[in-house]
Amino acid sequence: MKYHLIISCPDRMGIVAAVSSFVASHHGLILEADQYVDGEGKNFFMRYEIDLAASKLAYETFHKKFEGIASEFNMNWSLVDAERKKKVVVFVSKHGHCLEDLLYRWQSGELACDIQLVISNHNDLKERVEWYGIPFLHIPLHEGGKAEHFKMIGDKVSSLNPDLLILARYMQILPKDLCDQYESKIINIHHSFLPSFVGAKPYHQAYDKGVKLIGATAHFVTQELDQGPIIAQDVIEVSHRESLEDYVKLGKDIEKKVLISAVKQYLDDRILIQGHKTIVFK
Amino acid sequence: MKYHLIISCPDRMGIVAAVSSFVASHHGLILEADQYVDGEGKNFFMRYEIDLAASKLAYETFHKKFEGIASEFNMNWSLVDAERKKKVVVFVSKHGHCLEDLLYRWQSGELACDIQLVISNHNDLKERVEWYGIPFLHIPLHEGGKAEHFKMIGDKVSSLNPDLLILARYMQILPKDLCDQYESKIINIHHSFLPSFVGAKPYHQAYDKGVKLIGATAHFVTQELDQGPIIAQDVIEVSHRESLEDYVKLGKDIEKKVLISAVKQYLDDRILIQGHKTIVFK
Amino acid sequence: MKYHLIISCPDRMGIVAAVSSFVASHHGLILEADQYVDGEGKNFFMRYEIDLAASKLAYETFHKKFEGIASEFNMNWSLVDAERKKKVVVFVSKHGHCLEDLLYRWQSGELACDIQLVISNHNDLKERVEWYGIPFLHIPLHEGGKAEHFKMIGDKVSSLNPDLLILARYMQILPKDLCDQYESKIINIHHSFLPSFVGAKPYHQAYDKGVKLIGATAHFVTQELDQGPIIAQDVIEVSHRESLEDYVKLGKDIEKKVLISAVKQYLDDRILIQGHKTIVFK
Amino acid sequence: MKYHLIISCPDRMGIVAAVSSFVASHHGLILEADQYVDGEGKNFFMRYEIDLAASKLAYETFHKKFEGIASEFNMNWSLVDAERKKKVVVFVSKHGHCLEDLLYRWQSGELACDIQLVISNHNDLKERVEWYGIPFLHIPLHEGGKAEHFKMIGDKVSSLNPDLLILARYMQILPKDLCDQYESKIINIHHSFLPSFVGAKPYHQAYDKGVKLIGATAHFVTQELDQGPIIAQDVIEVSHRESLEDYVKLGKDIEKKVLISAVKQYLDDRILIQGHKTIVFK
Repeated sequence: MKYHLIISCPDRMGIVAAVSSFVASHHGLILEADQYVDGEGKNFFMRYEIDLAASKLAYETFHKKFEGIASEFNMNWSLVDAERKKKVVVFVSKHGHCLEDLLYRWQSGELACDIQLVISNHNDLKERVEWYGIPFLHIPLHEGGKAEHFKMIGDKVSSLNPDLLILARYMQILPKDLCDQYESKIINIHHSFLPSFVGAKPYHQAYDKGVKLIGATAHFVTQELDQGPIIAQDVIEVSHRESLEDYVKLGKDIEKKVLISAVKQYLDDRILIQGHKTIVFK
Repeated sequence: MKYHLIISCPDRMGIVAAVSSFVASHHGLILEADQYVDGEGKNFFMRYEIDLAASKLAYETFHKKFEGIASEFNMNWSLVDAERKKKVVVFVSKHGHCLEDLLYRWQSGELACDIQLVISNHNDLKERVEWYGIPFLHIPLHEGGKAEHFKMIGDKVSSLNPDLLILARYMQILPKDLCDQYESKIINIHHSFLPSFVGAKPYHQAYDKGVKLIGATAHFVTQELDQGPIIAQDVIEVSHRESLEDYVKLGKDIEKKVLISAVKQYLDDRILIQGHKTIVFK
Repeated sequence: MKYHLIISCPDRMGIVAAVSSFVASHHGLILEADQYVDGEGKNFFMRYEIDLAASKLAYETFHKKFEGIASEFNMNWSLVDAERKKKVVVFVSKHGHCLEDLLYRWQSGELACDIQLVISNHNDLKERVEWYGIPFLHIPLHEGGKAEHFKMIGDKVSSLNPDLLILARYMQILPKDLCDQYESKIINIHHSFLPSFVGAKPYHQAYDKGVKLIGATAHFVTQELDQGPIIAQDVIEVSHRESLEDYVKLGKDIEKKVLISAVKQYLDDRILIQGHKTIVFK
Repeated sequence: MKYHLIISCPDRMGIVAAVSSFVASHHGLILEADQYVDGEGKNFFMRYEIDLAASKLAYETFHKKFEGIASEFNMNWSLVDAERKKKVVVFVSKHGHCLEDLLYRWQSGELACDIQLVISNHNDLKERVEWYGIPFLHIPLHEGGKAEHFKMIGDKVSSLNPDLLILARYMQILPKDLCDQYESKIINIHHSFLPSFVGAKPYHQAYDKGVKLIGATAHFVTQELDQGPIIAQDVIEVSHRESLEDYVKLGKDIEKKVLISAVKQYLDDRILIQGHKTIVFK
């Protein structure tokens, strides 16, 4: 019986003592602990991995009993059953590298989640996805039918009730209502080092600018294009020798690396959103 | 007798043969060779390090004799006496870390140049500079006197006729005429990963944005602020744990690294400007 | 008609002139050029990518005509038809990550080669390999039958006449005669930063030692275990928090990255062996 | 009133609760907390940064009151007054780059310590050290007089009673008794990626081996040469183009980076030694 306890609240004395005493009083072991005090706003953030095998304290009981402390310290908090696999829906277009990386790691046991469905506006990656034993849903995007298209997607996703939506080089802009409905639950990989090169064709933009490093950014999706809270970023060196095609090829490896890192942190309940920024406990 | 021969011209057959045969016919050894064909514009770029000790071919003779080939292939070219130390003027404000790194490496023999003068609008770094045996010129910036201030600077620099001006965290915007006069000869270090966070307080901007990497960019100075051709860039990882003050501290190491890299390439005639981008032969 | 011309010879004046004039005289374009003079032994190394579409100079003709120059400068040289795909045999055991990375990149068009066969002493990866349309040969290793085992492997490989053998986490030590027969044609990925942690269980060794970075090394296979010329290496940071299992997991990404880099350089004729070291033209 | 509380003990329930309740009961704020459970040995490690300004709990009082908890949980522990600057003695030979980096950062306020003395067997760096206002002691190493030499050093160091001895490219092997006397208090920078290339001339060894990355290692000094617990390591890429002299030059930057990192962690009480390995809380 393992739980992740995620807390944010105004900082004051005694928070750690209260929480850790609560855990100890239920014979819990703290397997991993992270905490952080925001220097400016004086906010306190905490993530505990707790083993309650000794007392077999059930989720609901834990939740109920902890409410007193949570209320005393004015906490935003969540308790996560670490043994329940999160449900994930992946969105792709035609570029398969990020999806493939997710699927292979998932199959190898590296990603503890349940990939419910892959949705695409193209049919190219169907065979690959189904080889992994995962359902693939092709919803073509007909001209003029954007609203209907996303209505179908929304309904399908809604029926699955996923914990996480991954846009693995999806290339489509999600409509406002989907962004809102799954706020803080949609991770996108953008192929630039944001905030540089927002929007379409970021490698082209980077090439035209003559930067000496190209990058990728995993971020939560909000209504504002490529402006959501950043979770992970990385870069790779380029020189004048690389063509635009080389940028695209080299970039793939960075995209995969950054996306998988963000997804892992999410599945492990390590990401807290604070305003338009993230706290990522590693 | 070592020369650097730098060439750019439209690509066509026989350029390498013509140039290398010229070198061989004068008993020259090609110590290092770099060439590059721009895929799009079909331009050819080349940098040779040539040892002409065997024939003692003088600079002027080389220059004159090579003109025929240069004209045949429609070359933009320059021949540099690799044994002549380039003359450098450094501009600083109050932040000494980049300057210190330049001076220490210069003293250690790592930077083959002649640092003629350090110019500053503050007096803070005077003692340090003079300890290295380098003249320090304090030109205070009086209110309302910007034009006069830069007139004094321009005159002083003009009298020294330097090959390179380094803005080592200078914090002032050079006037248009200086930018023009020393076009492709002024290297600035900007403390962000350009094109993100142009202008003032880039670490503040990065902190507010919540990026997961902060960076620095060395670029040639043009009239447009922080928009000149990029020479070198690097980044360092940050997380929510780092405060704005930590950004400033961590950033210093990246600034030093990026600036020294750009300066070394420049002193070694490895940088070619092509449009608003650079080719850096390493 | 594209060729790679690879040369090593004692350094002297006129090599570049002779070679580039030869190319020009046959209306060839030098697409890429790399050269390097070994400071100590005074050896000269060169790699040219040449486009001979204009003259349609055939491989045999080129080879024959170039012999005069080669002999004059006492060259070790090879001319490679850049349009012929190299034939590759891959050896694996049970760990599929490096193989998968090779196959996926091969399928995506990133690796220009012809993967003839995957050989394994286990049957685990059969389905995966065959999904890619590549033959999989399972040759079990029976107790006491090592000589016979490798006889079968040797015969099979011999019949395929491959240009490259890749040991993609093969976990077996090749017998002396195979090492000799395919000298400079076998690339192994070793999961440590050599020369540290030679032999079995390098992650265990690294963990016990308490290093702060773990690495991987791609090298040519020679009779001496893990001592062949190193082609590529990379590392990743670890801390006390990572368990041995984490090392294995983290290490996979570095192994893939290093192996693919070495294989790409090999397929592109960029690796020259000089003594027990390599020159890798990038 | 800031303290660092460093604890290691057998893992069991209630440690965090006991310690954090103790802190809370004295109106302390936990500014930073790190803890770690060693998966194998079931040991618990913790580092707290505590602000006791509210209760003005004196060091001795804290120490005395905490003894009960420490004894109950069988702790190895130390309480450090975070406002007391640690006393440091630096040893150098002729290579000044690591020393210079330490001194410049110290002067810039980046290293919170009191550099009492620089000791060297050469006189080369005297002027530089004294420019920073730090005493420099030249103790030449006369032939045959090693024992006496180190007796003088030992006496001098003993009189200063430093918290940390830094061997900043000292090039001498400390005698057994000094290693023992200052166990876990001497940090050395070795210019290789240990355990590769132990002992003399590691860059030569790396060059001969043909590795593709060179590195540096900061470690605690024990009697066994270059075998003490590793604190920090880093590497930099090299290729066939770099000469041995280039290795030395490139290596300097890595040496500085790794040494400064280790020293900072030490001064901040972030390093715990566990057997022959380190735990470094970042």
